[in-house]
Amino acid sequence: MKQSQLFTKTERFAPKDEETKNAQLLTRAGFIEKLMAGVYNYLPLGLLTLRKIEQVVREEMNRIGGQEILMPMLHPKENWEKTQGWNNIDVLFKIKSRTEKEYALGQSEEEVVTPLVMRRARNEKNLPLAVYQIHWKFRDELRAKSGLLRGKEFFMKDMYSFHADQADFDKFYEIAKTAYLKIFKRLGLVAKVTEASGGSFSQKISYEFMVLTDAGEDDILYCDKCVFCVNREIAPSTSSGRAKENETCPKCKQGKLNRAKASEVGNVFDLGQKYGKDFDLGFTARDGTKKFPIMGCYGIGISRLMGVIVEKIHDDKGIVWPEAITPFKIHLLSLGQNERAEKIYDNLIKNNIEVLYDDRNISAGEKFADADLIGLPYRLVVSEKSLKAGGVELKRRSESKSKVIKEKDIIKNLK
Amino acid sequence: MKQSQLFTKTERFAPKDEETKNAQLLTRAGFIEKLMAGVYNYLPLGLLTLRKIEQVVREEMNRIGGQEILMPMLHPKENWEKTQGWNNIDVLFKIKSRTEKEYALGQSEEEVVTPLVMRRARNEKNLPLAVYQIHWKFRDELRAKSGLLRGKEFFMKDMYSFHADQADFDKFYEIAKTAYLKIFKRLGLVAKVTEASGGSFSQKISYEFMVLTDAGEDDILYCDKCVFCVNREIAPSTSSGRAKENETCPKCKQGKLNRAKASEVGNVFDLGQKYGKDFDLGFTARDGTKKFPIMGCYGIGISRLMGVIVEKIHDDKGIVWPEAITPFKIHLLSLGQNERAEKIYDNLIKNNIEVLYDDRNISAGEKFADADLIGLPYRLVVSEKSLKAGGVELKRRSESKSKVIKEKDIIKNLK
Repeated sequence: MKQSQLFTKTERFAPKDEETKNAQLLTRAGFIEKLMAGVYNYLPLGLLTLRKIEQVVREEMNRIGGQEILMPMLHPKENWEKTQGWNNIDVLFKIKSRTEKEYALGQSEEEVVTPLVMRRARNEKNLPLAVYQIHWKFRDELRAKSGLLRGKEFFMKDMYSFHADQADFDKFYEIAKTAYLKIFKRLGLVAKVTEASGGSFSQKISYEFMVLTDAGEDDILYCDKCVFCVNREIAPSTSSGRAKENETCPKCKQGKLNRAKASEVGNVFDLGQKYGKDFDLGFTARDGTKKFPIMGCYGIGISRLMGVIVEKIHDDKGIVWPEAITPFKIHLLSLGQNERAEKIYDNLIKNNIEVLYDDRNISAGEKFADADLIGLPYRLVVSEKSLKAGGVELKRRSESKSKVIKEKDIIKNLK
Repeated sequence: MKQSQLFTKTERFAPKDEETKNAQLLTRAGFIEKLMAGVYNYLPLGLLTLRKIEQVVREEMNRIGGQEILMPMLHPKENWEKTQGWNNIDVLFKIKSRTEKEYALGQSEEEVVTPLVMRRARNEKNLPLAVYQIHWKFRDELRAKSGLLRGKEFFMKDMYSFHADQADFDKFYEIAKTAYLKIFKRLGLVAKVTEASGGSFSQKISYEFMVLTDAGEDDILYCDKCVFCVNREIAPSTSSGRAKENETCPKCKQGKLNRAKASEVGNVFDLGQKYGKDFDLGFTARDGTKKFPIMGCYGIGISRLMGVIVEKIHDDKGIVWPEAITPFKIHLLSLGQNERAEKIYDNLIKNNIEVLYDDRNISAGEKFADADLIGLPYRLVVSEKSLKAGGVELKRRSESKSKVIKEKDIIKNLK
């Protein structure tokens, strides 16, 4: 894409009402724009990034056998009454139509997915199965804040699995956990698996996937020697025993527990038989009896991840996108050499390399500053100086050194 | 994908409360499931189809220079008050948060896109520009019906263009119209361009793109000789003169006007300067004066198109998907020959040919009936009979004859 045609421009200053780095940088770089607290527009660069994160998550969900569907956002009140959610979930947005019919706006989809799946899985041989969607959700948050980290309207992957018994659920939970850790790794993040409380209804322990960041809203304790990690909410009573800041890890009995702020980028809930029972939708087991399925719920915050990645990976000049999710791989800058640069641009496109081409008639300083702020992984500069040195200047956003490469070697250097 | 793993099954009978062919066939074939009137789940096959239609529309919007963005669904009340929409648009869903803050649910996005774009287009040199999104919308419909043709929650492409003057808008309108006709053609439809009234606020004429179908809600008159077509709502006063059923066409003065039911699959509105004025957001013209932009709005109903295509292209056995938007190109049926079929399946996938493989342990009759109902363009049968005849049986869904081709010629025959 040619930058001269992009309708967004970078901004020198962040909006005064944005306090977190992700909101400041993403807004300044033209990825997002706030419509109101917790509700953002995704501009061309932001939408491309969101789609990249979505695709990484989709690939890993498909790989473990998840079937992608799309469920509505407008839900009938009756479904939420059946699960007691209508009166008990305070973040549930409620709508009344002009004929006084009431709806909920989806903030989780057990109320829709349970009848959808269980009407088709009448028999044990239909189980296990897992369906997922990547879709928008709504929460009536009192204090939406921290940019993309806590929204009223946000983009999520939510998967639901259905099992004949607990052992089968436990097996799938391990598969899903492995897939989650793989996703976060592909996105350039290290996530800790954290014990947490079970949410609104479940009495069971749930697991959260936490990324350490000061912009996060969660308060965790983690062991400096082993994988033990716990949300401080439930630290007094973890499955490994009592956990306390600066004391010995209850799991490995060797490391020390550190306290940190973190952001929850994924979670897994063991829903037990609650939803099957609420809708009275069971299956016929092999022994002929009627049973209710054990269900699991697995979330990943796609738009939140975009914010968390910016919180974790930036410097004082701007964002530093990981290659897996960058909106474009290359930022091609022409410093007064548009004829030469245009040819390189065409060649990159011909080779299916995603490129943002700064063809604008502005100063070199402005182009460099924009490239650093937007944060694409590779910068390619075509200037009188580079041409005299025999080619174009290639620099990684994450490194300070650049090198001059020959024009004919560009593709080779980028693949 | 292997059909044995698909969690949806086909159904012999349509739900009693669905009166239109699109809802009946799409539900029976496992593409969609109704959650409530006008609100549907998209199951794996349905979601794949929706994404294909979306992609055709995206490609043509990008080709005419549209920049893709994503705007929120939750809108601040203030924006809708500025345009008088809050009190005047009866299909606008309104929400109150638990702190009594009011929001609208997006049913069109002028209220969001105007400030978003015009804060960046302060100068005539920034114009023209066009942004679009492909996103979900909501309408508080009193009588949501006709399956995917009229929903409370539906998937749409909406583009907005901004111009310095009327002449520039008129030029772009012609470009957009050509792109629209190309899109409908790629989707296997013939759309008529129809004069209609200008919608809620605009006093200007708008254009609707109509596909003739008895399931449609619009009532049109069209000339049997020329392109003249008009919505009967405004037939007494079209730009070509008075139009009346069975009378002479006011445009070509030769053809006769026929009356038909039709469904609106796209529309174009000349919004004039209304929204720039409502938000007091203008641009500085070349002569130094402040001007308000001429805006255009261009919609295409993506989920509605899925319904319209099924209404138009089906037979008594099921759906007949056009190749451009079919969820899979090939339906591979194994009649007791899974070992042989599996190899063909692997080879098709290796060649990037999208295939649904019926590997289930059910009768040939059931497999044939399912293939006809689901409606993929090509059916490939591997049976004892076909192998004896020297290969596999290939049949187009739209034709009655089949032919036996050699296994090694499959890819060649499908590309």
